[in-house]
Amino acid sequence: MHAFREHSSDKSYAMRAPPPAIGTRLADLLTPSLLVSLPVLERNEAACRSYLRGTGVALRPHAKAHKSSGLAEWLLDRGGSEITGLCAQTVSEATVMVEKGGCKNLLLTNEVVSSAQIRRLATLAADNPDATIGVLVDSPDNVLALSDAMASVRGGSLSAFVEIDCGQDRCGVKPASPAALAVAQAVVEAPGLEFGGLHVYHGGIQHVRETEDRRAAVASGPASAAKATVSQFRAAGIEVPVVTGAGTGTFKMEVEAGEHNEVQPGSYLFMDGDYSSNQEGTSAFAQSLFVHTTVISADEAGGKRVVDAGTKAVDLLCGAPRLATVDDEAAPLDPELLQAVSCHNGGDEHGVLRGVPAGQLPLGSTVQLAPSHCDPTVNLHDYLIGVRGGVVECCWPIDARGPN
Amino acid sequence: MHAFREHSSDKSYAMRAPPPAIGTRLADLLTPSLLVSLPVLERNEAACRSYLRGTGVALRPHAKAHKSSGLAEWLLDRGGSEITGLCAQTVSEATVMVEKGGCKNLLLTNEVVSSAQIRRLATLAADNPDATIGVLVDSPDNVLALSDAMASVRGGSLSAFVEIDCGQDRCGVKPASPAALAVAQAVVEAPGLEFGGLHVYHGGIQHVRETEDRRAAVASGPASAAKATVSQFRAAGIEVPVVTGAGTGTFKMEVEAGEHNEVQPGSYLFMDGDYSSNQEGTSAFAQSLFVHTTVISADEAGGKRVVDAGTKAVDLLCGAPRLATVDDEAAPLDPELLQAVSCHNGGDEHGVLRGVPAGQLPLGSTVQLAPSHCDPTVNLHDYLIGVRGGVVECCWPIDARGPN
Repeated sequence: MHAFREHSSDKSYAMRAPPPAIGTRLADLLTPSLLVSLPVLERNEAACRSYLRGTGVALRPHAKAHKSSGLAEWLLDRGGSEITGLCAQTVSEATVMVEKGGCKNLLLTNEVVSSAQIRRLATLAADNPDATIGVLVDSPDNVLALSDAMASVRGGSLSAFVEIDCGQDRCGVKPASPAALAVAQAVVEAPGLEFGGLHVYHGGIQHVRETEDRRAAVASGPASAAKATVSQFRAAGIEVPVVTGAGTGTFKMEVEAGEHNEVQPGSYLFMDGDYSSNQEGTSAFAQSLFVHTTVISADEAGGKRVVDAGTKAVDLLCGAPRLATVDDEAAPLDPELLQAVSCHNGGDEHGVLRGVPAGQLPLGSTVQLAPSHCDPTVNLHDYLIGVRGGVVECCWPIDARGPN
Repeated sequence: MHAFREHSSDKSYAMRAPPPAIGTRLADLLTPSLLVSLPVLERNEAACRSYLRGTGVALRPHAKAHKSSGLAEWLLDRGGSEITGLCAQTVSEATVMVEKGGCKNLLLTNEVVSSAQIRRLATLAADNPDATIGVLVDSPDNVLALSDAMASVRGGSLSAFVEIDCGQDRCGVKPASPAALAVAQAVVEAPGLEFGGLHVYHGGIQHVRETEDRRAAVASGPASAAKATVSQFRAAGIEVPVVTGAGTGTFKMEVEAGEHNEVQPGSYLFMDGDYSSNQEGTSAFAQSLFVHTTVISADEAGGKRVVDAGTKAVDLLCGAPRLATVDDEAAPLDPELLQAVSCHNGGDEHGVLRGVPAGQLPLGSTVQLAPSHCDPTVNLHDYLIGVRGGVVECCWPIDARGPN
């Protein structure tokens, strides 16, 4: 009979693929692995701050896109006072960004309800009294549970933002509703909680393709929801210090609409096939994220190549990736080849390339795939490998990877 | 200017959600988390061995389904001499199964071509001379590269299996083709390599729904490909010791067809929505894998609940999960409720349940989701939590998680 043992995860973690040495050339990297082009990342990062400068709207980049304390630290270093803080989407992300990434102002843009997760969040706030930790709420019961947890940890406070459902039909209370006011009033009265403001975000409209349609969706969705609820709260004697929300696809429109004073783009650092399909508005940003793969099987006559990156290396829910070259690689692939080749689902550990001209992409050669969706692709990997000129310049562990 | 640093991943790993203590009740577990019902797992495991007993066909369960050295150890303990060894699909999986899971006979069911991965594989073989390590090949060039790597590590050998493309149109050489024989002859002549046999597997036919259609697909695909190639090789003076392949959906049919003497099911331990849609043939197995979630937002009037498990906790490529109850939980949900509720994609960290009757599944309650595809769902988590009677009995780190 097998006796169940508790297994330590330390040694096994090291048995997984090790991080590459700085200075490794792309051709010598382990595949599949996740690359970020540092020149493109730097341009994307600068372009976002440049756009927001002088608008009076604060930037709080979302860490769910990268899940890396090292990248967070890089971002906060570069952004200086122009970056208010970070968003996170899970308690693990929040913990890693605050305790390892040096983030002093963290907003967890989700409701935290399970008692075990509430305990972790309250402990994080108590352990980091110099940091502002925020969380979303949409029910008075949850407000009470958070307040109770803060009482039990004796120290620190949480900043609670009322989540407004501005059309996504997910979490949140309806704009300017009695329910919205009831949640805010519960926050105001709850020991250990501060009222942070409103979270008014619509994920679904980030990918409305036409610019004018997207602008209209912002006006009728988050902008009008924010405006109505701020008025309602003011009439009830509650001032709203911060209205936060917006993603990479819409944040310029929220800025123009004038109801939000903080925006939360995250994907702008990496971009992906889905965002690239949007009409202008996200065009200031270029794709910096690539999955590096090796051709492991070649069918010259059939124009087929099999690469070692499948659905456990590239998320396919938003569609197949496209063949690409890291923008700063020393030897980029022929643009005609990139155009000719299509990528197909080959299962968990295989990707299938079709339409490859004879003699191209031989067995053992490396190529890159540009994912259709950056966030879930990052979540599949252990390291984000920064490259410049075809050489590894840094390696950031994706240390907040995981679902919880 | 930010100075890029190499980041250690040790501390950050601990900042992620910790493993639960043995004896924790389901209601107190962190969510989202991944549960396996131990009674169902045990029944699935026993049913597979029971079916194969006396057939003369060896069982080599595939570790890509669980990616856990702890579960591998459990499996090898229970299976005794009835389990030949394990399959793995990546070099990390192979390393973890051999060096931590105690596996003495490991077949990596993929081509390994990148030079960095070949080095890791050769080192694994050299470091573990008491273990048999196998790998697939489909080109003479790759055979030479593997042989060179074995020469450079000085010690041990690799068992190379010729992969036959029996219809999946992915890797492999055509059955009974000159190319197949050329690869086998290259293996026979290569120092440091043994000829292991043929790998004849078709992933695509595992999910042919009707039993008779699936049986016909096995006959015209893997079974006939194996038969023709074994004859071809024999005529050329090469005996084929092992013909391996087959998955959970078809392995009984490969056994009946009589050409394979080893089968590689993996999902039979967990099962999933996709396999459950197959007509009988997989009916000996029941779903043991569940994602445990908390209701984080409740819309009583709309019959909607939002749970804290999105696409980073449940893979959706094969469809949405269904609401379920861990089979051995002390307080199972009402079957009518399970039937009434549908699950929908709510994004990376949200799942949306619709059709929930008023008063059911209140805010803060926990529910389970049964994934449509087990392998990629397991890959999203850090721990596989074994439960019995609604209580945690063991926790297996998913220590081979990741793409490489």
